[in-house]
Amino acid sequence: MKLEILPVQGIGDVTAGDDLAELITKAAPWLADGDILVVTSKIVSKAEGRLVEVPADGPEREEARQRVLAGETARVVARRGPTTIVQTHHGFVMAAAGIDASNVDKTHLVLLPVDPDASARSLRDKLLSQNKDVAVIISDTMGRAWRNGLTDVALGAAGIEAIRDHRGELDPYGNELVLTQMAVIDELSAAAELVKGKSDQVPVAVIRGYPGTGEGSGAKELIRDTASDMFSLGTAEARAQGLRDAALLDADDEATTQRALDIVRTGALRLTPAGPSPADFLRLGAETHRVRTMLAADGHRTTVVFDDAGATIEVIK
Amino acid sequence: MKLEILPVQGIGDVTAGDDLAELITKAAPWLADGDILVVTSKIVSKAEGRLVEVPADGPEREEARQRVLAGETARVVARRGPTTIVQTHHGFVMAAAGIDASNVDKTHLVLLPVDPDASARSLRDKLLSQNKDVAVIISDTMGRAWRNGLTDVALGAAGIEAIRDHRGELDPYGNELVLTQMAVIDELSAAAELVKGKSDQVPVAVIRGYPGTGEGSGAKELIRDTASDMFSLGTAEARAQGLRDAALLDADDEATTQRALDIVRTGALRLTPAGPSPADFLRLGAETHRVRTMLAADGHRTTVVFDDAGATIEVIK
Repeated sequence: MKLEILPVQGIGDVTAGDDLAELITKAAPWLADGDILVVTSKIVSKAEGRLVEVPADGPEREEARQRVLAGETARVVARRGPTTIVQTHHGFVMAAAGIDASNVDKTHLVLLPVDPDASARSLRDKLLSQNKDVAVIISDTMGRAWRNGLTDVALGAAGIEAIRDHRGELDPYGNELVLTQMAVIDELSAAAELVKGKSDQVPVAVIRGYPGTGEGSGAKELIRDTASDMFSLGTAEARAQGLRDAALLDADDEATTQRALDIVRTGALRLTPAGPSPADFLRLGAETHRVRTMLAADGHRTTVVFDDAGATIEVIK
Repeated sequence: MKLEILPVQGIGDVTAGDDLAELITKAAPWLADGDILVVTSKIVSKAEGRLVEVPADGPEREEARQRVLAGETARVVARRGPTTIVQTHHGFVMAAAGIDASNVDKTHLVLLPVDPDASARSLRDKLLSQNKDVAVIISDTMGRAWRNGLTDVALGAAGIEAIRDHRGELDPYGNELVLTQMAVIDELSAAAELVKGKSDQVPVAVIRGYPGTGEGSGAKELIRDTASDMFSLGTAEARAQGLRDAALLDADDEATTQRALDIVRTGALRLTPAGPSPADFLRLGAETHRVRTMLAADGHRTTVVFDDAGATIEVIK
């Protein structure tokens, strides 16, 4: 098996309402049955009109961008400095929800397609109706944990299985292969990126020679279920969650949260027991540790001084 | 630019001491200047004798495997069920430190090459001395956060830049491109995997047509520094760290840890104050919360009862 990866030149600028099937077959009349078309999500978004208008500059631009980001976000996964990694409503974990300001004029942001699998399916069907039987992958550039640099992966797919599963096969030593479910549509997206430009308008590549593997059920197969993901939250966020959990432990006490907020506002708080008994002092002692832990979850370091009438918590400046 | 990805057939079984340059040029006499050779790390490890003997089965096999894993581990990143994700001494974050039992007889495990960049460099130099000027990438299969399925990435590289950096380039709208450092050696590894087999002995592929980009400083460029990694620890591990941090807060108190251990052993512990003053009771109250939080970090839920003489912590069965 030999693969070829061919850039599709001359697609030009894509705008809302454009017929991608037409643009692609015009630019690549050589497209053949069995080819895999890898299409950058940006032009799918543009053709589908997934653009929002934003101010070209100034603080209003950043405010608008934040509003757009919030709309595309199902949950925040991690934040550090200017970087926000979120899970989108599709389930993708991406920096800034895949919202992009490149390859578009300064008054617009490009959002991901609403349903990239449906977009891939629709493009495949249109090409099929023109008697071109090709698989379609819609790709985008993503970062990843643990490794520098970005790679292209698949957001949508039609006419190809997302995963090639080697489980159950035997190696030459008779060992059964395990843990070898290869995310081939991600590998095909990465391969296609190698011939596409970032700035030179080659948003489509064709991969020729990869054996067909059935219709597939889309790239959504590659979205890991959050519950089974060992990295569903950023390290700092998960540690802060641990501190918050420690503060509340069994008692989800609004008073603890309120006290922590008061201390942040005033810099210090005096706590006294609810009654005169030794057990009241024990309870107050535990509460001081809850409050201090709640503050630690938000990055505030504190001191506490105990005396015979109560406790004083102070934030370390 | 058009790429070709060509499998190298007929390399056969590789054993310690084999000359990979010779095996490859014999199997692929058509190898040409400018080609990129993508070599599965497994055969590099085998040629370099990176094998350890283990019992073929039984509990002794698993014990031996755990010992080997510990030796290859710089730090544990996350654990769930039978899965252990570690950072290796090289810096790679991989399940089971990349130790592999496939494509080897049942009495051996294959470890990663000691220094994959050096292995790539050595193979490139040997081929250069035979007047073949090819880049070399050593690849392996890895999982990733957030996405199902595995992809091949680069462990080592020579004769090629690890990253293609588009920063500073302008798109057709005049926007400067940011965040577009592409991990091209990972994408090349992924592309090569598409023509390699898992069980059918195609451990080498050639990529033809990718423009040369200099000598490069190796795949170690792709290892993200732990301090700048937002996902340096698993979510559960980071949350537990938060709980432990909450237990100790400012005071790294061995007594707290010891009390928590005592409670796990006996199921319950009675705590009494160090002295009779109200401040002593406040301190003991705080300590009960520290101890309970320490237990929570290890997954133990507890109750506490305060009375006028002290506190009783019990583990909920």
